[in-house]
Amino acid sequence: MKPNFSLRLRVFNLNCWDIPYWSKHRVDRLKRLGDFLNVESFDLALLEEVWSEDDFESLRQKLLPTYPAAHYFRSGLIGSGLCVFSKHPIQELAQHVYTLNGYPYMIHHGDWFCGKAVGLLVLHLSRLVFNAYVTHLHAEYSRQKDIYLAHRVAQAWELAQFIHHTSKRADVVLLCGDLNLHPKDLGFRLLKEWTGLQDAYIETQDFKGCAEGCTMVPQNCYVNQQELEPFPSGIRIDYVLYKAVSGVYISCKTLKTTTGSDPHSGTPFSDHEALMATLCVRHSPPQPSPSPTPGPAEMSPLITVLKETWTELGLGIAQAHWWAALASCMIGLGLLLLVVVCTLVVGGEAREVTLLLLSPIVGLVLGAGAVYLFHIQEVKNLCKARSELQHVLGRAREARDLGSVPQPAHLLGQQEEDRAEQQ
Amino acid sequence: MKPNFSLRLRVFNLNCWDIPYWSKHRVDRLKRLGDFLNVESFDLALLEEVWSEDDFESLRQKLLPTYPAAHYFRSGLIGSGLCVFSKHPIQELAQHVYTLNGYPYMIHHGDWFCGKAVGLLVLHLSRLVFNAYVTHLHAEYSRQKDIYLAHRVAQAWELAQFIHHTSKRADVVLLCGDLNLHPKDLGFRLLKEWTGLQDAYIETQDFKGCAEGCTMVPQNCYVNQQELEPFPSGIRIDYVLYKAVSGVYISCKTLKTTTGSDPHSGTPFSDHEALMATLCVRHSPPQPSPSPTPGPAEMSPLITVLKETWTELGLGIAQAHWWAALASCMIGLGLLLLVVVCTLVVGGEAREVTLLLLSPIVGLVLGAGAVYLFHIQEVKNLCKARSELQHVLGRAREARDLGSVPQPAHLLGQQEEDRAEQQ
Repeated sequence: MKPNFSLRLRVFNLNCWDIPYWSKHRVDRLKRLGDFLNVESFDLALLEEVWSEDDFESLRQKLLPTYPAAHYFRSGLIGSGLCVFSKHPIQELAQHVYTLNGYPYMIHHGDWFCGKAVGLLVLHLSRLVFNAYVTHLHAEYSRQKDIYLAHRVAQAWELAQFIHHTSKRADVVLLCGDLNLHPKDLGFRLLKEWTGLQDAYIETQDFKGCAEGCTMVPQNCYVNQQELEPFPSGIRIDYVLYKAVSGVYISCKTLKTTTGSDPHSGTPFSDHEALMATLCVRHSPPQPSPSPTPGPAEMSPLITVLKETWTELGLGIAQAHWWAALASCMIGLGLLLLVVVCTLVVGGEAREVTLLLLSPIVGLVLGAGAVYLFHIQEVKNLCKARSELQHVLGRAREARDLGSVPQPAHLLGQQEEDRAEQQ
Repeated sequence: MKPNFSLRLRVFNLNCWDIPYWSKHRVDRLKRLGDFLNVESFDLALLEEVWSEDDFESLRQKLLPTYPAAHYFRSGLIGSGLCVFSKHPIQELAQHVYTLNGYPYMIHHGDWFCGKAVGLLVLHLSRLVFNAYVTHLHAEYSRQKDIYLAHRVAQAWELAQFIHHTSKRADVVLLCGDLNLHPKDLGFRLLKEWTGLQDAYIETQDFKGCAEGCTMVPQNCYVNQQELEPFPSGIRIDYVLYKAVSGVYISCKTLKTTTGSDPHSGTPFSDHEALMATLCVRHSPPQPSPSPTPGPAEMSPLITVLKETWTELGLGIAQAHWWAALASCMIGLGLLLLVVVCTLVVGGEAREVTLLLLSPIVGLVLGAGAVYLFHIQEVKNLCKARSELQHVLGRAREARDLGSVPQPAHLLGQQEEDRAEQQ
């Protein structure tokens, strides 16, 4: 048994908008961020969009006296952009790269090249196991016509699954990051329902910062004002989420955001606002296990959101099939043109023009071939996520047919229940 | 506390060599395999290289009465080839796709297109949590000049990490699959040392099958005899591995392999031999926690293998850098040729020949560009694995400097130790 304890954990989260040769005042912003982190001396600073490993290295050197432990999560072509600085030793590290993350031919959006991921660090504090996760999901470039919706939903599912499967021995789970999801979005509801994580902004007793907890606000001079036009107060897409298992109680004492400027009223650290949370973890007498026969209503939010996700992924699959079919047509057209051009070349007609056409036609066939293969792979990965959801829904149906109304814990391997029993 | 218990688990593993339009007698072999699995009624059948989802579906239909639960692990372009059939309900499912898995331009080897992965299924039997993993690592096409060695070692590390992070609540861990690793290979030693898994062939009291437990033998009519020439008895690359946490004891009562034919002396099920294990799981009084100051020798096998892996990944990084540099040169050469050809076209010299050259040159630049990007990503992913290893080695060094000689449990988050304490 763990002894009685009580501890305070100060956490910092920021999407740093650190894109070399692109983001404004990058060097100055990072310098001020480093100074601020050193002065504040958080327990844990979790950063997203640090796209340059050199910038991470400079920060690491600067923060070394205050944050002796640090890690950069490498992935994709550029890196996941995720890094962590910790005052406490990092016991273990792991990461999961999302299998779906946009399209390589959408070069101007660039998400595909980053290898978006979730990073995990395990800390041991006061004999408790803390699993801290940091992530950054695919950006939303258009809310009206979001071609990445299915990918983001699939990422939210993979994130929820990764947390679920890797946190079974954790006493406290913490997730920070830029989810690119509004609080009512499907992906966010799915994440919360499946993992049981709580939203610091909703739970805290003391919030100071932007109205409605927004983390992208029009007051910030780096924000694209046009994109925020439909949201006069801004949007909330960066989060601090947490939960504790039975026997441990966690609450958010205070949550602050920056408000469109840095804490000294200078230019902001980033185009996103920083989140600063003070979490309080203490011993709590084990809660009684949930009643074995709860009312059907208890299950419904989870089942509803799982079904909604299943449908959304289905739409994504249909869209991916459509693109694969279009690419097939382009391959067919390219091959037809190739035959025509070759025939003209052999026949000696307008040889120069026809020879000049060869390159773009070969390019069309190869390019369409690559697009076809990419979308076939997309179908496969969306089907993978959907089959996992189907399995969960199937288990829920079986439990219902057997007469025991399914509870989330039932589908989640009963970890909390067992845990309580052991203690 | 769990009650006293004892249970027997019969497990079947086979790399099915089920490649549509390619493998010999595929339909007949799968039919006989299905009949055999139905008659034998194992608790769990874990299959690799089922490359056709239609074949999985046929098997699923056929095995439904005996194995009501089944799952196919989709990934990559083709699918991971992994599937499972279980007599018991599958409580949970998860999978991890390896970040490194060969090269897309090695089309004749094809591993890259499969999205090799590890699949996890969680079963609850006699109130125990069973985590069963199935995997298939990158093939070894040449033992003398193995260009995929770093990838396979990185896969073994990811596999070990996936098992480590997802099995923290499991009472029993089981891993079956085609590892494409000989028993003394670095990847296999790394996997065993990091996870603590035991090899059924080494541990069993009763083995029947091919000499030295081989799973690819010259007696098998489908095996490429030339490849096995250096190994007269065959090679052992398919495994049943297991472990149990404190409070639970697991042993392998019997292990059998097929011996180059099916169990009725007909043509074999596959070019690999099947493994059939009977595992016995029973209650065991909690073992005392390991002494807090073990001799330095206790740590050395793990540290040695981690260092060896670190070096091997370093060689892989150097090789990937070399390929990226070569691709850069090819891009430069292609661009130079493009300028020359365009100058000639504009100058009106040998227009037809020069125009004809345009396509291959553009192809060269684009192809070399893709190869360059691929190898840069390869470097990133190898560095990721190496930085995780570096973190573990760093933790070991810190522990040593602090005077406490590090133990595997220390680096592994002390899960077993804590567990014993709780029970």
